[in-house]
Amino acid sequence: MPENPLALGIDLGGSKILTAVVNAQGQISSRDHSPTPAAEGQEAVIKSILESVDRALNQAGIATSDLGAIGMGAPGISNPETGIIFASPNLPGWRDVPLRDIIERELGKKTLVMNDANAAALGELYFGAGRGARNFICITIGTGIGGGIIIDGKIYTGAFGAAGEVGHMTIDNNGPLCNCGNTGCWETLASGTALVREAKHQIEEGARTSILDYAGGDIEKVTPRIIHAAAGQGDNLARELIAQTGYYLGVGLANLINIFNPELIVIGGGLSNIGDMLLNPAFKTAKKRAYREVYQAVRFVPAELGQNSGVLGAAAFALREMKRTIA
Amino acid sequence: MPENPLALGIDLGGSKILTAVVNAQGQISSRDHSPTPAAEGQEAVIKSILESVDRALNQAGIATSDLGAIGMGAPGISNPETGIIFASPNLPGWRDVPLRDIIERELGKKTLVMNDANAAALGELYFGAGRGARNFICITIGTGIGGGIIIDGKIYTGAFGAAGEVGHMTIDNNGPLCNCGNTGCWETLASGTALVREAKHQIEEGARTSILDYAGGDIEKVTPRIIHAAAGQGDNLARELIAQTGYYLGVGLANLINIFNPELIVIGGGLSNIGDMLLNPAFKTAKKRAYREVYQAVRFVPAELGQNSGVLGAAAFALREMKRTIA
Repeated sequence: MPENPLALGIDLGGSKILTAVVNAQGQISSRDHSPTPAAEGQEAVIKSILESVDRALNQAGIATSDLGAIGMGAPGISNPETGIIFASPNLPGWRDVPLRDIIERELGKKTLVMNDANAAALGELYFGAGRGARNFICITIGTGIGGGIIIDGKIYTGAFGAAGEVGHMTIDNNGPLCNCGNTGCWETLASGTALVREAKHQIEEGARTSILDYAGGDIEKVTPRIIHAAAGQGDNLARELIAQTGYYLGVGLANLINIFNPELIVIGGGLSNIGDMLLNPAFKTAKKRAYREVYQAVRFVPAELGQNSGVLGAAAFALREMKRTIA
Repeated sequence: MPENPLALGIDLGGSKILTAVVNAQGQISSRDHSPTPAAEGQEAVIKSILESVDRALNQAGIATSDLGAIGMGAPGISNPETGIIFASPNLPGWRDVPLRDIIERELGKKTLVMNDANAAALGELYFGAGRGARNFICITIGTGIGGGIIIDGKIYTGAFGAAGEVGHMTIDNNGPLCNCGNTGCWETLASGTALVREAKHQIEEGARTSILDYAGGDIEKVTPRIIHAAAGQGDNLARELIAQTGYYLGVGLANLINIFNPELIVIGGGLSNIGDMLLNPAFKTAKKRAYREVYQAVRFVPAELGQNSGVLGAAAFALREMKRTIA
């Protein structure tokens, strides 16, 4: 391997594919961003990944043979040792997909597949808000809630690599049905999906709100961003809905605090961009529900790498693993 | 230190104090068991601990000067580095108690204080059901639910030693009030306390049941053991209450499975002695609620050391730490 090898990072999400060529210091040479054709099925998604990889490599002016490693984050439950994706609520129809073997065959290069939220946590550990911390949780709040658990400065992946599914811990056993089949999961109460679902429900019930106006009168166009915009203009329902989502966020944070006694909780993902209006009720609730001394020991910090955390974490982790296995 | 040094293990619980002289192989030379005068306050409890230690040492025919180390498990939130107990729901009035310093001063010997459920997990790791496992959770179901998290063959204690409070993860945010001040904690729905509370409630509501007969007609004498006895004789309410407790147990187990992807969950504590009637509904619920592959990867095993897990774990851990700091 050259002294400062390059790696390819791939971050496959339910709605976007991000690929980037990076080095071990987390510097990005090239980056490609495209939508995930999730509804078109597995083959279309894999075709889109490969096209995105081509563009990123071209932009960096390199070939796959120049890469030291490929690291890939993918949503859902996977086994990093076999590279098989068992199930992914946000990739309909994916079931026992040997993603690593497919990518290795297509690109002719050793590939490491891991959970997308774990990749994001590694990115923040190596290059972002988690630098220097030994024990922390990184949560990514978007369509769902992903989690990455860093213990003793390493990613904790459990018996076969599926650890960190904090979004699927039950916080209200009588709560709404989640995509995973369970009820009252944290992510089904405290994610962007939850916020939109509750807003639609209130609108359909005839609540007084300007949210629908911001969505051009089309209820299907209501998004977290639109609800946030309405709240910013003083819409009471929008504010209440965000505060309620924050409350549920806090219930889950209290659980993580009591279970892990973390020094740090790194919070990222699109929904967290709402900021204080969401996070203040979350912290207030967590403070009320967690053990006092354990709550006081935790610092909440925003993720620093934005959308790049996953590609940076996956690529850098793959480089380190490659080095480790060679050494 | 002699080649095979002895250690003193102390397991302080809300209702019992257990002390034992043990060696590094987990063999017990002497053992003393006495009630905790919790209601009489801190000084009475410490006096009882010291009396129990005296009896155990006398029985083994040794003095504190013969001990290589003292390890102590205590309930509630503590900091092993300072040996201070911040709060303990089962020891009324205990607040910021410098337990380690008190014991060291009284016994004149270096002492290590840790959470009681962590001590139990270490006991099972070294000498019991967790031997050879790298990543597992040990839960102790009694008056409450304690947890110990073993990661990479070591106890995970978090930022300052309070990790593992799995009994205080919320599984029903609208649930009953817990001793810790939170609502809907796992232990307030799935412990012996929960089972007894629900039985009393049903009896007061006039439910048809023989539970009260088994308690000699005194509702204050209803215990998990009595409810189990009634269930064994076919009492429908008793069976339903145990099954309901099992259901809640399963909700929390599913959370731990999704979060930790553990290879093993070791289940101990008095309530777990009910066996299948409690555990079958728990496993059924966990199977339904956790990710399929992650559920399939976990083995549930009963704790092997019974009441001795805490003294064995605390004593052996203290010996190892002493060795490590000397070396």
